[in-house]
Amino acid sequence: MRLATYGPPGMRRAALRADSSLVDAAAAAERAGVADAARWRDAMHVLAADPAGRERVVSAAHALRDEGAALAGDVCLGPPVPRPEKILCIGHNYRDHVAETQRAEPTVPVVFAKFRNGLRGAHDEIPHPGVSDEIDYEGELALVIGRSLKRATARDAMDAVAGYMVFNDLSARDLQRSASQWTAGKALDGFAPCGPELVTADEVSDPAALQLTTMVNGERMQDASTAEMIFGLGEILEYLSSVMTLSPGDIVATGTPSGVGMGQEPKRFLGPGDVVEVSIDGLGATRNRIGARPELAHA
Amino acid sequence: MRLATYGPPGMRRAALRADSSLVDAAAAAERAGVADAARWRDAMHVLAADPAGRERVVSAAHALRDEGAALAGDVCLGPPVPRPEKILCIGHNYRDHVAETQRAEPTVPVVFAKFRNGLRGAHDEIPHPGVSDEIDYEGELALVIGRSLKRATARDAMDAVAGYMVFNDLSARDLQRSASQWTAGKALDGFAPCGPELVTADEVSDPAALQLTTMVNGERMQDASTAEMIFGLGEILEYLSSVMTLSPGDIVATGTPSGVGMGQEPKRFLGPGDVVEVSIDGLGATRNRIGARPELAHA
Repeated sequence: MRLATYGPPGMRRAALRADSSLVDAAAAAERAGVADAARWRDAMHVLAADPAGRERVVSAAHALRDEGAALAGDVCLGPPVPRPEKILCIGHNYRDHVAETQRAEPTVPVVFAKFRNGLRGAHDEIPHPGVSDEIDYEGELALVIGRSLKRATARDAMDAVAGYMVFNDLSARDLQRSASQWTAGKALDGFAPCGPELVTADEVSDPAALQLTTMVNGERMQDASTAEMIFGLGEILEYLSSVMTLSPGDIVATGTPSGVGMGQEPKRFLGPGDVVEVSIDGLGATRNRIGARPELAHA
Repeated sequence: MRLATYGPPGMRRAALRADSSLVDAAAAAERAGVADAARWRDAMHVLAADPAGRERVVSAAHALRDEGAALAGDVCLGPPVPRPEKILCIGHNYRDHVAETQRAEPTVPVVFAKFRNGLRGAHDEIPHPGVSDEIDYEGELALVIGRSLKRATARDAMDAVAGYMVFNDLSARDLQRSASQWTAGKALDGFAPCGPELVTADEVSDPAALQLTTMVNGERMQDASTAEMIFGLGEILEYLSSVMTLSPGDIVATGTPSGVGMGQEPKRFLGPGDVVEVSIDGLGATRNRIGARPELAHA
């Protein structure tokens, strides 16, 4: 299943992919005759549905598409999971990227946070924060937790993954560097675009062998396989769940390979009008333009 | 107004203090005849209410108390704000504490994150995480955001503070030290007990002059004034809101003074059965016992 959301912030509705079209999930659920059809507006409800119900609704989505009831092709996509409890990001998780940051390789996963204010859809404009001159991209594979996890083994943890999506861990390097903790350089509004859709785990044969590329204004900047991670997906989840309960809808972004802007010679940061695309085999691509720089009243 | 929540996780209901008693907020709202009485179950709805409505409902809470309709004295308190979008914590924000951590004084606020899984009520037991031998306390003043804030001046930001509460920024020092980013040592389940209630800003004459004390098993470990912060409350909010949108219900914990367990000679960490109390003048106290150490299957 491929799950998207659409509509304005605060009113996102779930949609299901039927080949090249999207269909409203609640409409498909009603067509399928499931009892709780209205609740399929909520992406988390769709993810929690049992496989049989899901299959019926996806079939109904195809039927609606055939009848011309697909959503418009230019519908405004939201983040596939709009209201996660946590957005956990892993830093320094590809050897080549660790080398370009000139840090030592970590002995445990390096964990930092973003929040819901960061989430944007796959094609949304990213608001320029005004307070940074060093906006950088980090193309990443993200996973979404499907059921509650605490003290799980790597194998059990992988069974709890609902699916995968593209994630851009946008970073303000100057803010990130200004303090020992990176939060201020990571948790800016709109600095976590993702999507275009969540691809459920059953449709991803090997998440540890996906090619990831990042393009800036059409120029290829990152190109690596998720096989190159230092801590694999199961290891990351085993570690995180040893420390905290992971909850359905939590997003885990698994780190970026080499090729970020601050690793270039000369450095290549993002400014107004620049377009960043992150794509991962089989998952689709985000494509986000950086917005105009705001006038800051008290700058 | 003094706002608490009570009841089991996931079903927390708002309560209002009437002198030494608590009264269910929705019951008080119904008694006051406000139109949306049922919605007063939700602490965020109570905080968003206009002052006149609030005053009527608080009066009704007193009337109910007089009629014997107060909640039982041993009601199970939840965190005053159970579902914040963000929990932002400031590190290294008291000079004496920076000295005991042997770090340099920061030039901008050091920001790190906790999540909802950390929240517990003022008297809840804290689950021992099993994976740490260095559980430490950090008594802190926390504020809760009342309305959306972006690029605010310090003064405007203070006008957007809904209120204040006691917060214990529990930390697993060994996990915190194991990576450059502190998240794994900070975001453990139950490591953010707070309360017993949120005291609205109108009842706190000077939040920058409150005495804070932390006791472990009755022994005084921290004792300082919030006047000793490096970055004051307004400065913290100005900084945070320059980077990200702060939303109603967001919790900002403002740092801890000296006297934490890792600063003692010998170090004084918390184990099963230890009781930590954090109290702040006029805001009340949290009092949390550390639970039994779990058996770890794959330790």
